Amino acid sequence: MFRISIDAMGGDHAPHEIVAGAVWAAQDYGVALELVGKQDRIEQVLDEISLKGFYSDCGTGGRMRRIKIDISSLDIKITHANEVIEMGESPGAAIRKKKNSSIVLAVDAVATGSSDAVVAAGSTGAAMASSLFGLGRIPGIDRPAIALTLPTIKKPIVVIDAGANSNSTPEMLYQFAVMGSTFSKNVLGIDNPRVGVLNIGEEAGKGNELAQGTYKLLDEHGKGLNFVGNIEGKEIFLSVCDVVVCDGFVGNVALKVTEGTSSMLFRMLKQEFKSDFVGKIIGLLAKPFMKRIYGKINYEEFGGALLLGVKGITVISHGRSKAYAIKNAVRVAKEAVETNVNEKIAQFYGK
Amino acid sequence: MFRISIDAMGGDHAPHEIVAGAVWAAQDYGVALELVGKQDRIEQVLDEISLKGFYSDCGTGGRMRRIKIDISSLDIKITHANEVIEMGESPGAAIRKKKNSSIVLAVDAVATGSSDAVVAAGSTGAAMASSLFGLGRIPGIDRPAIALTLPTIKKPIVVIDAGANSNSTPEMLYQFAVMGSTFSKNVLGIDNPRVGVLNIGEEAGKGNELAQGTYKLLDEHGKGLNFVGNIEGKEIFLSVCDVVVCDGFVGNVALKVTEGTSSMLFRMLKQEFKSDFVGKIIGLLAKPFMKRIYGKINYEEFGGALLLGVKGITVISHGRSKAYAIKNAVRVAKEAVETNVNEKIAQFYGK
Repeated sequence: MFRISIDAMGGDHAPHEIVAGAVWAAQDYGVALELVGKQDRIEQVLDEISLKGFYSDCGTGGRMRRIKIDISSLDIKITHANEVIEMGESPGAAIRKKKNSSIVLAVDAVATGSSDAVVAAGSTGAAMASSLFGLGRIPGIDRPAIALTLPTIKKPIVVIDAGANSNSTPEMLYQFAVMGSTFSKNVLGIDNPRVGVLNIGEEAGKGNELAQGTYKLLDEHGKGLNFVGNIEGKEIFLSVCDVVVCDGFVGNVALKVTEGTSSMLFRMLKQEFKSDFVGKIIGLLAKPFMKRIYGKINYEEFGGALLLGVKGITVISHGRSKAYAIKNAVRVAKEAVETNVNEKIAQFYGK
Repeated sequence: MFRISIDAMGGDHAPHEIVAGAVWAAQDYGVALELVGKQDRIEQVLDEISLKGFYSDCGTGGRMRRIKIDISSLDIKITHANEVIEMGESPGAAIRKKKNSSIVLAVDAVATGSSDAVVAAGSTGAAMASSLFGLGRIPGIDRPAIALTLPTIKKPIVVIDAGANSNSTPEMLYQFAVMGSTFSKNVLGIDNPRVGVLNIGEEAGKGNELAQGTYKLLDEHGKGLNFVGNIEGKEIFLSVCDVVVCDGFVGNVALKVTEGTSSMLFRMLKQEFKSDFVGKIIGLLAKPFMKRIYGKINYEEFGGALLLGVKGITVISHGRSKAYAIKNAVRVAKEAVETNVNEKIAQFYGK
């Protein structure tokens, strides 16, 4: 049985929703837990859940359902951490200063082998920094990158880097392509995943120096990778490739623009339906259909992004994550451990 | 009466839709035209429109309406150009080689003063290069940038640079802020426009070197600008600022992601409505509401983006532009001439 270490204090809804999601996953996916954070608060949440269960919208954005958990049947270890790294702190300095913070000890659990993977919904920077320093890099990889899975009309795609590195080189993006491709193949089960470079045009000479350099590297040295060339922002959701490679700055902007665009469109639709009486009725009728779309594009379904390139599995969840998202994040962590994605990345370079 | 020069050969639907949109604008907005391109083909289209009018969906994406134009009442000049720059050509080389191309001569018309502005739906690179070399830069501006107006829930925002420069410096982005702000104030009529830097977090130290450097410049030397700090991709549509400043690579990716996300959501909604019989009926009822949203976010309403920083007005339209988009592009060109946006940019630096 795999044990997943959880930063119980990280995220806007910590510790309650984080612990709730973790025990939910433990019950549904059969994993053991190592909950890291303030012991008394974690125990209090566990007692509450044990007595009354907890409520979740199960990713629908709608009605709350009560989830019951038999805590006593689960394998849960609590590791006390008396510090918490807050969202505004500088990650590097914070992990050096707060050696007893929940994120540092949660990663430590993986480093020492007491857990198999870590799930963190707090500061992304702190999760990255503690993973980098606590777990070390996979040989051949210069910088870890965040691989985020996104829904499209057809199969899910991976965007790498979704925000770990703001100043990248073509060599780094080449490594992201290797990691993203390995992840897509092994964790998402996509055969011979197509790798594209996010760019502002299709032709080889398009874009900035970084995109041009990356294209050249992948084109000339992309052995073992199914490189399909440049892809444009509007094609991300059209299944023209399975792995979208980009700098973390561009990737992060692109993902947040996706989030902003969809929330604007849903708001506009709601407003439009409210504009007259007939509209209100049609809006009510259309609601379940809109909800289903909402469910399909909801980040909570994917639970979290994987930090690839470190010697261990770190799943980074959205700061707004509630129980349902954390539950899925634990599932992602378990799948990554099962499929041994890191060893396969190392093998690529070992060849 | 202003005269607008049109590259009649540029764009996927040239020359028919381009000429149709131009004469439509001439009739509705009272401007004179200089149609630049193959004379016989332009005359043929004008004859056709004169006889039978033309059809347009008027930006609704739905039913086509017949538009009648009294060509004889319009002030139309035709300038023959026997060459066309194709989409794949390298812009710099193409404008040097094809001195008699429609885009070069259309810009020339502005440079020589025979027209007041140019509208181009062909190669963006060629329109930029010919404007830069044909019109020259405004003193104080190192590189022109593309200012694109986007709809949001409240007032429209300007994204600058939307794709002119793929490798930018903080100094360039500072100038984009000046130009975008001047445009927002004078052409869109927004009082004391708020300027934000597109970044991956709100704090001053966030993001890549470019974003950090730009933040610093605007924060310390942004006199006369209403700088409000960093904004994230998800906030673009939330009216937290009026001018979004970014590198052309990031801006172009962001805009195309917006396009891709909305088209995916509309497709998903259509699919969802088709999933059962009741859904089909609700889908039919909801159609007019979805159409209205489509109209609101449709790029055709904004007609085109302005190339700011050159001594003259160049409006760059989407390559897919049909008559309705071109009509609106001519309106944007007219408004930019009327409000004298370039002189106001020059004044900013003259102070």
